[in-house]
Amino acid sequence: MAGFEGRKMSSKTNPGRFFEDYTVGETLIHAVPRTVSGGERALYHALYPARHAIYSSDEFARSCGLAASPLDDLAGFHLVFGRTVADVSLNAVANLGYAEGRFLLPVNVGDTLGATSEVIGVRQNSNGKTGVVWVHTKGINQNQEVVIEYKRWVMVKKRDPDSAAPSPVVPELQQVVPAKSLIIPKNLDFTDYKFDQAGERHRFGDYEVGEKIDHMDGATVEEADHLMATRLWQNTSKVHFDLSARDDGRRIIYGGHVISLARSLSFNGLANAAMIAGINGGVHVAPCFAGLTVRAWSEVLDKAETDSPGVGAMRLRLVATKAQTSDMQLRDATGKYEAGILLDLDYWVLMPI
Amino acid sequence: MAGFEGRKMSSKTNPGRFFEDYTVGETLIHAVPRTVSGGERALYHALYPARHAIYSSDEFARSCGLAASPLDDLAGFHLVFGRTVADVSLNAVANLGYAEGRFLLPVNVGDTLGATSEVIGVRQNSNGKTGVVWVHTKGINQNQEVVIEYKRWVMVKKRDPDSAAPSPVVPELQQVVPAKSLIIPKNLDFTDYKFDQAGERHRFGDYEVGEKIDHMDGATVEEADHLMATRLWQNTSKVHFDLSARDDGRRIIYGGHVISLARSLSFNGLANAAMIAGINGGVHVAPCFAGLTVRAWSEVLDKAETDSPGVGAMRLRLVATKAQTSDMQLRDATGKYEAGILLDLDYWVLMPI
Amino acid sequence: MAGFEGRKMSSKTNPGRFFEDYTVGETLIHAVPRTVSGGERALYHALYPARHAIYSSDEFARSCGLAASPLDDLAGFHLVFGRTVADVSLNAVANLGYAEGRFLLPVNVGDTLGATSEVIGVRQNSNGKTGVVWVHTKGINQNQEVVIEYKRWVMVKKRDPDSAAPSPVVPELQQVVPAKSLIIPKNLDFTDYKFDQAGERHRFGDYEVGEKIDHMDGATVEEADHLMATRLWQNTSKVHFDLSARDDGRRIIYGGHVISLARSLSFNGLANAAMIAGINGGVHVAPCFAGLTVRAWSEVLDKAETDSPGVGAMRLRLVATKAQTSDMQLRDATGKYEAGILLDLDYWVLMPI
Repeated sequence: MAGFEGRKMSSKTNPGRFFEDYTVGETLIHAVPRTVSGGERALYHALYPARHAIYSSDEFARSCGLAASPLDDLAGFHLVFGRTVADVSLNAVANLGYAEGRFLLPVNVGDTLGATSEVIGVRQNSNGKTGVVWVHTKGINQNQEVVIEYKRWVMVKKRDPDSAAPSPVVPELQQVVPAKSLIIPKNLDFTDYKFDQAGERHRFGDYEVGEKIDHMDGATVEEADHLMATRLWQNTSKVHFDLSARDDGRRIIYGGHVISLARSLSFNGLANAAMIAGINGGVHVAPCFAGLTVRAWSEVLDKAETDSPGVGAMRLRLVATKAQTSDMQLRDATGKYEAGILLDLDYWVLMPI
Repeated sequence: MAGFEGRKMSSKTNPGRFFEDYTVGETLIHAVPRTVSGGERALYHALYPARHAIYSSDEFARSCGLAASPLDDLAGFHLVFGRTVADVSLNAVANLGYAEGRFLLPVNVGDTLGATSEVIGVRQNSNGKTGVVWVHTKGINQNQEVVIEYKRWVMVKKRDPDSAAPSPVVPELQQVVPAKSLIIPKNLDFTDYKFDQAGERHRFGDYEVGEKIDHMDGATVEEADHLMATRLWQNTSKVHFDLSARDDGRRIIYGGHVISLARSLSFNGLANAAMIAGINGGVHVAPCFAGLTVRAWSEVLDKAETDSPGVGAMRLRLVATKAQTSDMQLRDATGKYEAGILLDLDYWVLMPI
Repeated sequence: MAGFEGRKMSSKTNPGRFFEDYTVGETLIHAVPRTVSGGERALYHALYPARHAIYSSDEFARSCGLAASPLDDLAGFHLVFGRTVADVSLNAVANLGYAEGRFLLPVNVGDTLGATSEVIGVRQNSNGKTGVVWVHTKGINQNQEVVIEYKRWVMVKKRDPDSAAPSPVVPELQQVVPAKSLIIPKNLDFTDYKFDQAGERHRFGDYEVGEKIDHMDGATVEEADHLMATRLWQNTSKVHFDLSARDDGRRIIYGGHVISLARSLSFNGLANAAMIAGINGGVHVAPCFAGLTVRAWSEVLDKAETDSPGVGAMRLRLVATKAQTSDMQLRDATGKYEAGILLDLDYWVLMPI
């Protein structure tokens, strides 16, 4: 058996796409579709301290007009995001931002999610070594309905620094998803919302724009927590799994894990921020590593009415920190993010009026 | 963005209840209801070395007269307990005891569990800083049936040491749930019990009161194990999750995790202790931390007949230890628990005669 | 309560079988049957970076002629293997090999798996302290259909070194399961196989015998990962769980965990090795421990046609390593396995032609 003089090397593995491989207008069909069950629902509850009632109880969801308790919105987001990694971010240097995220349909047990991404922008960086790629990603269910969409831009390595720069195309992105264009789940009705079962009495009318909420609770992250979550979403980015993939010999935690952690911690003070309807923007301010204790605070940015009975839309800033920040300050005098901030997420929730 | 001079602090977060907040006769409606699926069942098997056949196999459960394999009794217990934490033990100093626990209905896939607790006793401690609160907790399913009930008492901080003490009310609690008041699942029938599939041949008649069983196996606990379990039950007690919440910088493991671990280890010697019917009492003798290797031994305390075909009731003491205790001694000559004991649980099981 | 002068010791625990306890021709009925749900499917995805499309998507599985997405073949294998541990390998010194493994029916959500093992060989070792036991194990579903079968041999301790040696019986085992005897799932049809959804374009015809594929990706193993997996399969071998069970104070990782890890990593380059049909042999070359970064490479050993439309059978060697092996060398000049190799698995996959 020794020797293998005649062995043939294979080049069947996926090196990921480089900046030169993206053409504006092209649509990437992402592998691998995924069917979700009660298993994914249960794991979401095992991986995050999630307690929002619509995602916890079929009975509660039915009392709000839904057919059953869907998967947490962010579980759907992570599953769609996970599909895109092999095509979008395997050679990404940085995840630069999100915009125009909308949750169009609840993801229910039994649904199968696939994903596509249209390339909507490219711009080479002045150093010639990297470029920015913008994509418009859609999560699509077994009925070919779009369940989630968002735009995202990442900095990607060039394969060949000497290759010619493409004509720059920079898409115009909305700063905020207008409340009027949010899609409310069909039949959602909060007129008979059960506050005692949801865990807090504070309703839409109790929150004021500018109000801040320190969510109090903290969670110290273990390696196994984020590894299981990130595998569950079939996110294959090496830096999350392979200690040898980064110079510092540490696993960087998938940014979406921090989003779910912060959102779950925000239950304490925002228990009735019942569903997520949109993502206006998001910045992963600093990397998160196992051993950190993550905390969260929120700021009410805006409020809007909707056409659904009893349902208000509230725009929130959700900030995850790795230190106890007593003053809930986002930026310092020079405009830079305060030390210790991990995440700055701007999103829309639906809440009982 | 810097500055926030106009920011308004919020007081919407839940600080938990203090001793003064409990009134005898009051019923607390606990948030958040939870629907269980095969996901929770599978996670129970991933988190504990559980092998009791009724909870492992639909076919086996059907051969015992049940409709399908229910969730492990203790999964139901933890889910109900988890609901109560935000209202009962967020400011608890100590979990003092359990009594009069009964498992009234199996918890099946698809069930939604809510919980209520009636305050049945209060007594201020002589130091004036804390008091004991007794509650009668019920887990209630989507049909408004009580599936689990138990009484529990905890020591809770006072908000204001100078506030007046309430009139003491100390409930009378049964030392042992009488065998006659145990509720056997409808149609449960062990006359055709398949001992070869259950893993041991020892039946009710083979056990004698006073007999002790060293369960042999040990399990070294990892942080991620108990974190996932405790989140799964939506138990939000800070000391289980947040390394900064305790002076020693360690996470204390949820006592129920030790109960499930010990019960699972007790399979080896008590494989046919098929279902749990009641909890007579329980003491978390010492805190458990990750890194410890947990072992278990049992003592047969009593035996009783039931009206269900082929079903006997056996009262067991289940002791979890953090050291190999060759002699299965519970207390020393002075009556104190032996060093190394973590848990002393007194409970009723159902067993094939 | 102190004293227990009257206590009676019990011998109801299972010490496991010793070499003397195996008789050729005997069939062991293994406890405990297990019903699987979407929970086990989801956990497989949380525990391994698994992405093969048939096991990820009901829609994809249907497009290949199956009724729904089954559990990963290896999940079925681990569940069957887990059942056998208490009867076969509790006192095993070494897991020596596998042969004649066949996957006869997909394992679907709702199935209940039991297992039996026929003893097909025994041979005492010359040292008189141990012997080799061969078993033919079958995984059997609720309809009494065999879903998986394999032969396995282990070295087992003798209870009494002075007991007489049995007449040696050494079964003849096939070096390779003939392609013609592989069982293809009923109705499996790859003529409309969706390569874009599966994640790679390489089909049966693109692979050549002798070709090697470095699967690129690595995964650094955490203790909690393999603990959860091994518990999920109800594998009770002490060395996987109890730090005090081995002289080196380390948990040895269940060999099957490494198989699943390597198989999942092999997606990158073998995404269309859609299903596993047989296991020809397997050697756990070195033990695996938490903290190691596992990588994998494959070699195409053979190719064969099948009678199912569009389905080819490819025989692969799957090698897991604990170091980056750039040259994919299996053995050194003396015929010994190269340093750093953990697993050498020889198996058959089904692939679109």
